[in-house]
Amino acid sequence: MTAGARPVRSVDPRTGDSNATDLLPTGAAEVAERCARAGAASAELERIGPAGRAALLRAMADGLELARDEVVTTADRETALGRARLDGELIRTAYQLRFFAEVVEDGAYLEAAIDHPGDTPMGPRPDLRRMLVPTGPVAVFGASNFPLAFSVPGGATAAALAAGCAVVVKAHGSHPLTSALCGRILADAATRAGAPEGTISVVFGREAGTALVSDPAITAVSFTGGHSGASALRALIARRPDPIPFYGELGSVNPLVVTAAGAAERAAEIGRDLVGSFTLGGGQFCTKPGLVLVPAGPDGDRLVDAAGEALAAVPAPALLNAGIAESFASGVKALEGRRLITSGAEPARGFEVRPTAVLVDADELDAALLEELFGPVAVLVRYAPEQLAGVLDRLPGSLVATVHGGAGADPERDRAVEVLRGRAGRLLFNGYPTGVAVSWAQHHGGPWPATDTQHTSVGATAIRRFLRPVAWQNAPQASLPPELRDGPSPVPRRVDGTAVPPARATA
Amino acid sequence: MTAGARPVRSVDPRTGDSNATDLLPTGAAEVAERCARAGAASAELERIGPAGRAALLRAMADGLELARDEVVTTADRETALGRARLDGELIRTAYQLRFFAEVVEDGAYLEAAIDHPGDTPMGPRPDLRRMLVPTGPVAVFGASNFPLAFSVPGGATAAALAAGCAVVVKAHGSHPLTSALCGRILADAATRAGAPEGTISVVFGREAGTALVSDPAITAVSFTGGHSGASALRALIARRPDPIPFYGELGSVNPLVVTAAGAAERAAEIGRDLVGSFTLGGGQFCTKPGLVLVPAGPDGDRLVDAAGEALAAVPAPALLNAGIAESFASGVKALEGRRLITSGAEPARGFEVRPTAVLVDADELDAALLEELFGPVAVLVRYAPEQLAGVLDRLPGSLVATVHGGAGADPERDRAVEVLRGRAGRLLFNGYPTGVAVSWAQHHGGPWPATDTQHTSVGATAIRRFLRPVAWQNAPQASLPPELRDGPSPVPRRVDGTAVPPARATA
Repeated sequence: MTAGARPVRSVDPRTGDSNATDLLPTGAAEVAERCARAGAASAELERIGPAGRAALLRAMADGLELARDEVVTTADRETALGRARLDGELIRTAYQLRFFAEVVEDGAYLEAAIDHPGDTPMGPRPDLRRMLVPTGPVAVFGASNFPLAFSVPGGATAAALAAGCAVVVKAHGSHPLTSALCGRILADAATRAGAPEGTISVVFGREAGTALVSDPAITAVSFTGGHSGASALRALIARRPDPIPFYGELGSVNPLVVTAAGAAERAAEIGRDLVGSFTLGGGQFCTKPGLVLVPAGPDGDRLVDAAGEALAAVPAPALLNAGIAESFASGVKALEGRRLITSGAEPARGFEVRPTAVLVDADELDAALLEELFGPVAVLVRYAPEQLAGVLDRLPGSLVATVHGGAGADPERDRAVEVLRGRAGRLLFNGYPTGVAVSWAQHHGGPWPATDTQHTSVGATAIRRFLRPVAWQNAPQASLPPELRDGPSPVPRRVDGTAVPPARATA
Repeated sequence: MTAGARPVRSVDPRTGDSNATDLLPTGAAEVAERCARAGAASAELERIGPAGRAALLRAMADGLELARDEVVTTADRETALGRARLDGELIRTAYQLRFFAEVVEDGAYLEAAIDHPGDTPMGPRPDLRRMLVPTGPVAVFGASNFPLAFSVPGGATAAALAAGCAVVVKAHGSHPLTSALCGRILADAATRAGAPEGTISVVFGREAGTALVSDPAITAVSFTGGHSGASALRALIARRPDPIPFYGELGSVNPLVVTAAGAAERAAEIGRDLVGSFTLGGGQFCTKPGLVLVPAGPDGDRLVDAAGEALAAVPAPALLNAGIAESFASGVKALEGRRLITSGAEPARGFEVRPTAVLVDADELDAALLEELFGPVAVLVRYAPEQLAGVLDRLPGSLVATVHGGAGADPERDRAVEVLRGRAGRLLFNGYPTGVAVSWAQHHGGPWPATDTQHTSVGATAIRRFLRPVAWQNAPQASLPPELRDGPSPVPRRVDGTAVPPARATA
C-alpha cells in the first residue's frame, strides 16, 4: 500500500455507482516484495514436481467451485455480465485449472530429448540432454472482459503455475473485489496443497503494474487489453537490462466470410446466429466477429434482413466500464451517415449501450472500419464476387477467422481459407468464433496484433510461454533432472532421434 | 543496386588490404523485390511438401561440398580463420542442411494434434486440429565469425527453408565474396531441386539490412552480432505496424567454474585446455569461455601457471575485421594495471592481436570484467570458497556455462549448477564450450542477451522459430492440411490427448 493512497474503487456497470473498497493500490515496495517472494516460490514449485503442481491446480479448482456463489455474485456486481454467463465462466476456469494438471502429469510439454554420444560427420558428439524448465515468476495482467477465465484464476495463471512459475497478477481496475476474492481463494488453496507462500498474489493500481513489468524477478508478462496500455508496458520492458517476453492480445476484428454458396444455403440462419455471436456478453469478446463479408444480391440481403430482425430484439447491455462505454459511443458516432441497423432497446442507465451494426459496400470499406470496435457492434460488408479477393487482402491479423461456405465443393471458400490462414490463428468453418474450447489442439493467438505470433493463450500449449529450453552436456546422472536420467522415464522423450513413450508405473 | 553506389569491398584480415569487389550495395527497391519474390517462393516451398524441402536441403549440402575448394579459399581470404577450420565449418554446414532434411521428414516438428468433438464440463467441444505452419519469408543476418555455419548457408537458413520459409540473407560486411559465392551455390541447388526462384537470396550493405527488417513481407529476423547493431534493428522492428520476432544472439561471457575438487584433480590439464578453448578461432566464438572462476590456493595457482605456459605459445591470430581488432585492442588497454598473462607472439600485420588473459581476485571483479570481450582474451577470477556464491550471483546470462568439478560427489559443483541453470542455455560438465553439436537435444540460446529466451539457433528445435500454430475448427477434410486429415498420418500426432506414432509407408 502507498501512504495516503486513496482506496481502490469498485463500480457497478448497471448503475455507474462507484464505491470505495477496503483495498489500497499496491505500492512499489510491496510489489518488489511480492516479486521476490514469487522468486522463492518458483524454486519451490519446481521442487514439488509434477504431482505437487497438479495437486495445487486441482485444489485451486476445488476452491473456486466451493466459493461459487460468492465469486459469481461479486463478479456480476462488478461486470454486469450476468450470473449465468459468470457461472459458465467459473466452470470453464475450474476446468482449465484441472486441464493443466493433466498437461503437467502427461509430461510431453517438457520436450525431453536425449542424444547419446556418437560419431557424426562433424566429429564425435557429446552426450546432450535437453528439456524445458520454468522461466521464473510471471506477471499476469487480468482482462476486463473475463473476470475469471482471463484474470486472477485464468488461463495464464494456470499455465504458469503448471510450468512451475509463481504468478503475480495485476488486477484489472474493472473488477478489483472479484480479483481480491479470487486471489484469496487461490492462495488458500495453495496453502492447503502445501505450495509455498508467494505462489500467487494480486496487486492493484496502475503504479503496481508499472513496477511489476520492470521488476528484475519477473521473467514474462501476459497481457490482454488495448493497444495503448500494451505500448506503455512494452516500452517499459524494452528499457529493462534484460527485456523479457511480452505475450499480449491487443484486439482483433475476426473476419467472418459468407460465401455465395453459404448465403444461398443458410442466409436467415447465419444472419440470426451472427447477431447472437457479436452481441454475446455485450460484444465484449476478443473473438467477436467484428467484420462480416456478405455477398451482394438477394441471398446476402436475406442474411442482412435476418440480422436486422434479430438485432432489433437484443436488449441493451451494460458494458464493463465507463471507458469501454465511451469508446463504444464514440466509435458508433463515427459511423453516423452510414446505414446503421440497431437494437430497439433503449439504453437507460449505467454503462448501457445500444447494439448496432453498420452496412457498407466493399468499396466503402475504409481503414477505420478495419479496426476493432469493442462492444456489441459489427461491420457488415457487401461484396460483389470480383471484390472478395481485394477485401480479404486488406484484412489485418486476427485471433480467429470464420468462413461460412456451402455444404459441397465451394471454390470461394477455399480461396478465402487460403488467404485467411495467413491472417488468423484459428480457422473456423460454418460456426461462430465466440467460444474458445480448452483442449490439446486449441490455438488462440495469431499474427499481430497478437504480440507473439508463436504462442497461444488457450489450450495445452499455452504452457510453452513460461518455459525455456536448457541442454545438459556430459552431465553426471545426479546433476540431471529426473526426466533426463538413464533408465525408464515418466515422460515421453526423443532418444537419439526416436520417440520413446513414457514408462508408466504398473499396478 | 543503388545508382552511383560504391562497390562492396573485401578485406584480407592477414594484411588489412581492402579491395573493391564486383558487388554493389543492394538498394531499397531491389530489397523489396527480393522480399516479394521470397513471399511467392514461401508459398511454393510449402506446396512442395516435406519431401520437396528435404530434397532441396540435400541439394544445397551437395552443392556446398562440390564447391568446397572455392568456398574454403574465398572464406579463408576474407576471414583468416584458416583452411582447416573452414573445411570443418563447411562439413558442419552441409551436415546441418542434411540434418534439417531429417527433421522435416520426421514431421514431429509440426506438433500436429487432433481433438475430436466431445463433451466437457464446459459444454460440447468442436472438432479442433492444430499444426504449425511456416511464418513466411525470413531475414537472416550473417555472423562475422562463422562465414558458413552462421551465414548464408548456415543454421538459420537451413531451419527456415526446412520450415517452408524462403530466406533473404543480409551478408556480413566481413565476407561479402564468400556470401555471394554461397548464395549462388544455394540458388543453383534450389533450381536443380525444383524449388522456386527467390527461395534464397543475398543482399549487401547496411541500407539493405535496414530495408530488410522493415519490409512487410518479412516475418522473422535472425541475427548474430553486437548489441548496438541489434538495438538499431530492434528499434526498426518495433516501428513496424506488425512487429515481428527478432531472434538475436548478442554476446555472452560463458562462465567456466572450476571447483576446488576439479582443480585438485586436473589443474594443469584444465589450465592448458582452457587456453585452447578461449583462443580457438582467434577467440571469436560466441561460446568462448570468457570468465573463468579458479579456486584461490595452490591448485588454482597450478591451473593459472599451466594456462600461462599454454598461452605463451599461442600464435597471434588475425581477427576478422578492423572493428573487432580495434575493440579488442581498446578492451585489453582497459585492463592495463591488472595482472596480465599474454602470448609471446608478436602481432605483426593486418588485424593480428596478442592473446591475453587477465588475473583478478574475486573482490576486484567489476562490471566491465563481466562484459563480453570478443577475441582471444579471458578473465581468470581467483575466488576463496566463501566468495563463490557471491560471484555466481553476479554473472549475466550466457549461451553456455561450464563446470569443472571432481570425479565424485562435489557439493560445490552442485551449488554452482543450481545457480548457472538460471543463467545459461547449456550446462557443460568437465569440458569446453567452444563446439556446439548439431543434434536433436542441442540448445544454443539462453537468458538475455539471447533476445528470445525460448528458442535455439542450433539443433532440431531451431526450426520452431519460423513456424506459428494454426487451429482448424470443424473444417471439412479437404480444407485441412494432409497431416491433419482423418486416417493414417505420415507424422506423429496427439489425438484426443494421446500420442499416436506416424503410420509409415510399408514396403
